[in-house]
Amino acid sequence: MEMNSLAQERKSAQFDVEAMKVVWEGSPEQVQLTQRIGQLVASDPVFRKDNRVSQGRLELFKNTLWKAAHAWSIIQSMHLTEAEALKLRSFIDEPAYTDLHWGMFIPAIKGQGTDEQQQKWLPLAFKQTIIGCYAQTELGHGSNVQGLETTATFDPSTDEFIVNTPTLTATKWWPGGLGKVSTHAIVYARLITDGKDYGVHAFIVQIRSLEDHHPLPGVIVADIGVKFGNGGYNTMDNGLLRFDSVRIPRDNLLMRVASVTRDGKYVPSGVPRQLGYGAMVFVRKSIVMDASTYLSRAVTIAVRYSAVRRQFGTEQGKPETQVIDYMTQQSRLFPLLATAYAYRFLGVWMSWLYSDVTSRLERGDFSTLPEVHACTSGLKSITTSTTADGIEECRKLCGGHGYLCASGLPELYAAYVPACTYEGDNVILLLQVARFLMKTLSLLGSGKKPSGTAAYLGNAADLLAKNCPVTKERDWINLDTLQHAFEARSARLSVKCATQIAAASNQEAGFSEFSSELVDASRAHCELIVVTRFMEALKKEIPGRGVREQLQILCNIYALSLVTARAGDFLVTGYLSSEQLDLAKGQLRSLFRELRPNAVALVDSFNHSDYYLGSTLGRFDGNVYENLYNDALKDPMNASPVTEGYEEYIRPVLKRQLKLANSRL
Amino acid sequence: MEMNSLAQERKSAQFDVEAMKVVWEGSPEQVQLTQRIGQLVASDPVFRKDNRVSQGRLELFKNTLWKAAHAWSIIQSMHLTEAEALKLRSFIDEPAYTDLHWGMFIPAIKGQGTDEQQQKWLPLAFKQTIIGCYAQTELGHGSNVQGLETTATFDPSTDEFIVNTPTLTATKWWPGGLGKVSTHAIVYARLITDGKDYGVHAFIVQIRSLEDHHPLPGVIVADIGVKFGNGGYNTMDNGLLRFDSVRIPRDNLLMRVASVTRDGKYVPSGVPRQLGYGAMVFVRKSIVMDASTYLSRAVTIAVRYSAVRRQFGTEQGKPETQVIDYMTQQSRLFPLLATAYAYRFLGVWMSWLYSDVTSRLERGDFSTLPEVHACTSGLKSITTSTTADGIEECRKLCGGHGYLCASGLPELYAAYVPACTYEGDNVILLLQVARFLMKTLSLLGSGKKPSGTAAYLGNAADLLAKNCPVTKERDWINLDTLQHAFEARSARLSVKCATQIAAASNQEAGFSEFSSELVDASRAHCELIVVTRFMEALKKEIPGRGVREQLQILCNIYALSLVTARAGDFLVTGYLSSEQLDLAKGQLRSLFRELRPNAVALVDSFNHSDYYLGSTLGRFDGNVYENLYNDALKDPMNASPVTEGYEEYIRPVLKRQLKLANSRL
Repeated sequence: MEMNSLAQERKSAQFDVEAMKVVWEGSPEQVQLTQRIGQLVASDPVFRKDNRVSQGRLELFKNTLWKAAHAWSIIQSMHLTEAEALKLRSFIDEPAYTDLHWGMFIPAIKGQGTDEQQQKWLPLAFKQTIIGCYAQTELGHGSNVQGLETTATFDPSTDEFIVNTPTLTATKWWPGGLGKVSTHAIVYARLITDGKDYGVHAFIVQIRSLEDHHPLPGVIVADIGVKFGNGGYNTMDNGLLRFDSVRIPRDNLLMRVASVTRDGKYVPSGVPRQLGYGAMVFVRKSIVMDASTYLSRAVTIAVRYSAVRRQFGTEQGKPETQVIDYMTQQSRLFPLLATAYAYRFLGVWMSWLYSDVTSRLERGDFSTLPEVHACTSGLKSITTSTTADGIEECRKLCGGHGYLCASGLPELYAAYVPACTYEGDNVILLLQVARFLMKTLSLLGSGKKPSGTAAYLGNAADLLAKNCPVTKERDWINLDTLQHAFEARSARLSVKCATQIAAASNQEAGFSEFSSELVDASRAHCELIVVTRFMEALKKEIPGRGVREQLQILCNIYALSLVTARAGDFLVTGYLSSEQLDLAKGQLRSLFRELRPNAVALVDSFNHSDYYLGSTLGRFDGNVYENLYNDALKDPMNASPVTEGYEEYIRPVLKRQLKLANSRL
Repeated sequence: MEMNSLAQERKSAQFDVEAMKVVWEGSPEQVQLTQRIGQLVASDPVFRKDNRVSQGRLELFKNTLWKAAHAWSIIQSMHLTEAEALKLRSFIDEPAYTDLHWGMFIPAIKGQGTDEQQQKWLPLAFKQTIIGCYAQTELGHGSNVQGLETTATFDPSTDEFIVNTPTLTATKWWPGGLGKVSTHAIVYARLITDGKDYGVHAFIVQIRSLEDHHPLPGVIVADIGVKFGNGGYNTMDNGLLRFDSVRIPRDNLLMRVASVTRDGKYVPSGVPRQLGYGAMVFVRKSIVMDASTYLSRAVTIAVRYSAVRRQFGTEQGKPETQVIDYMTQQSRLFPLLATAYAYRFLGVWMSWLYSDVTSRLERGDFSTLPEVHACTSGLKSITTSTTADGIEECRKLCGGHGYLCASGLPELYAAYVPACTYEGDNVILLLQVARFLMKTLSLLGSGKKPSGTAAYLGNAADLLAKNCPVTKERDWINLDTLQHAFEARSARLSVKCATQIAAASNQEAGFSEFSSELVDASRAHCELIVVTRFMEALKKEIPGRGVREQLQILCNIYALSLVTARAGDFLVTGYLSSEQLDLAKGQLRSLFRELRPNAVALVDSFNHSDYYLGSTLGRFDGNVYENLYNDALKDPMNASPVTEGYEEYIRPVLKRQLKLANSRL
């Protein structure tokens, strides 16, 4: 019966799934690559991952080292391209030191090193004859990079920097790959020369011997302990690091932006610091793409299992109702399905933004930076928060079985949720967006036209004046109507904040007092960006039977589910009436009905293999219960019919032969 | 400096913490009991819990068996009372088979067994010469108890029931204590006699030998595998169970409500089924009390660490700002602090409700049952959902370090979140509340006066007509104003749903179509109950300097944070204007300022020991960073400076001596 459910669902799809896969992946070649590398990983027993949740931390970590070494051997022996190697590592699907080596250490050298430094360090890193990590955050300093305490003091007598950890809170804390593996680290430290503190700079510091892997003299390095989740980030050696006057050569300072001369003079290179923003946009684009991938995995599991699972609502003698047919289920699940697609199109647009920024920076055009900085900060924040919450929501939508690791969802959540904190705490990022919005509004009077994603604020007068024109349900699924609604919500919330702050005793006090309202305004701004990027993407031609139609439904669901979820925003600003909100809800229900027969095919289009999903509930064949049952019987806990510990701890209880304790009250 | 922060905070408190502890615990004797048993557990090395997150599942589980046996030996040797034993088990602070034995198996026999059956089984259970669990849910059947498939067919030829598992989906699945420990189970199965199915009844079935603990013939029993979290419920042997025609004596049917005669006749006893509702109210009261306890633990950790942690916002040379001083932090944290207190008063009221229902049932008065059933369903739902989300929110409020198990929060979440599913899925429960609300409204016309927590619906006309009278911030902190606001919100949402359903083609279709709106209406009803119980409790005299004043602030924060969080509800029903909402937000900010100097003392009043919290971030002395650092160095991962796996998997990579793989693309 279960196989039947999903097969039946697939028959009802009204679009070409293969064509949708191409939209999701970006090109037929990408679909092919996913298939090819996915198959390679799934078929290799070294990459087995179903056993990791029973393992203790040490065993788990050692297993990850094995996988990393094995992957490296495959990459070399098969001469994989960079894109193939990246895909391979991502399909192994567990955090590892290699993420930091390839994703942070090498890019930092590329971005912050001079050509000469790159020539020296990159070949070593590419061959992994050194392994590096990225040591920025400290025990007492997370978001506030300018507050870092580690020092690197230039000593002209030996032409070296002396790296030092002056306090407990200055201990480097969290860097992945640091605790047990890395031989080198990019260390952020205050550059001090000639008695002057020039602020935080990046240095390459060797921390372990290349011969025996022991920490070098003066270096204390260790793992920071167990983290959230069964597997999650426990495969990663997030580490701590302290320096007791460790000496490094002067030219281990990454010197693209500034250098120190032989006699200790601090010399800016003239290369503008803003060049670093390109890398930031790239990282945030990747984070948004990852958000869509993670969310799509959770949604695949929840949609498939909701189609397999039946509960209540039967006529006598008939099977129970598929839970995906309940409105309470649809109204939580379908918006998340739409969100996964929305974030994918957002990621594609951010790739364009990255190219655009890069080419501008090369031309010395920094004009778009504030807007790009604000928009990418905000998008990182809302996509990661929504994805983390969305994975948990999908878990809950699977009922009790979602709590089993066999669902794949607990680990997915544990592995994903740090994205809300790394690369900028999500609340702090939204406050940065808010500063940009307030500044943009304050400049309107002076005639400065906002551009890019903030251009609509130039229209504030219209957006404040005109309310929603909707008079019937169908009116809602109109591009201009939706765009105007999101622009008006955002503009009104921002203007209201600006007015409130202006009325405060001083700007900073006002900003602080109304910071919750500012966060709401920023969220509105960012959600507008996501909605409009989705709508923009659908203006292009999209091949494949029914593909564009399905995407249009998803886009409308994404937008209208936000309208109803943020009803308070739209109502409090007077933009919507209660009646119009009801019409939005009604239209949304119609869209759910249109989506329903395509739901399973829409998650099939994400192209996730059973191996990658790692979920019995989300199996492609829908054969959920048989596999849950058989897998449970194979669990190490069931190796013998009588449990370990019976003789010592259960039998003495049952037989009343327990030695009584001596504890006293 | 860290010690300083919390000591400083405690000096600023404006109330008597010891008196508040009495309010929280219920009596000075309870405070004493907590101290005494808490100390007993914390000082006993067997109950050590800081090492469990590094353990693999088998080791972890065996450790729990040890703790359970050790606890039992203490309970016996020290002749602990039932209350003391319960407290002891709860302070050990990990799920174990004993929870089910004492919390479900024994109560089921008490509630559903005849006097004779109780005399037979209870002494065995009290001595733990048998250990029991509660086997209701099946692989394919969670919430829908009437859909259970397991059968118990009476065989008059041997005077036995034949218990059978007819399908894969009929496999019992989830019961705690079943997988590896229990010798007996309360099994829910369809009673069939004389060819007729009398529906689901409870049976006592022995599943393991009392001699060698092997499963009995015809019984398949096993653990269902790893669950969410490092520790969490992995200390529990949630199990699966199948029967292949297992025979049990006829009188193993729990026969309080109905029995089967020697010749196979089904005979109702005349004892009304409704008597079971008393037990249900008791269980839900306990769940609400647990919610307040769990939430208070998370809030304690987040409040203390927010006072210790500093970030940004300094004047040059001064220490950074305590994060608890940021409005974004306060606006997320203080409402949760208030909620923990709100749920405690709610639990106390539910204890009264339990007594009231019990005495009514004894008098044969079933009149309040529908209302009590609805209100306890709804309160179970909203308190557990809010608490689970609240724990995660507290984790996020601790920044990156919240993700470390050393924060105590990941495990707290993993262990708590099943409460959203067991004893009724939270969404389904709210839909049951909705049915009650719709029915209550439909009966208004016939002149039937609603009672208890639904009495206000008798006033619907007034509640629909009169809008909020608030014209300035201070107007909001008025008992009548708040109560009217919550009553009006709830009544208006319910009436709107009723109207929408009435307009649908048929009732059931309407109920299904508007089920999301119905869930909102139910939530409004339940939140009203929590707010009013809190306000009612404060009408009594409460001794202790400043205690009542602090509770009044918390009550107002609880109510107003709901007004702002549910702004959409209040606006869409036309009850509030945007201006009034702004006034609520302004008043809430003032309340946060009033609460601020008391925040740390208010969490101290929860009386949680460092052992019980299990959190380095939440330590009473605030000495967070030193302990994080020292504990990390003691982690098993740091036993040696060079990691296990170096020789096999790291050195060959660095030295380019890796054997190349044979995999082919």
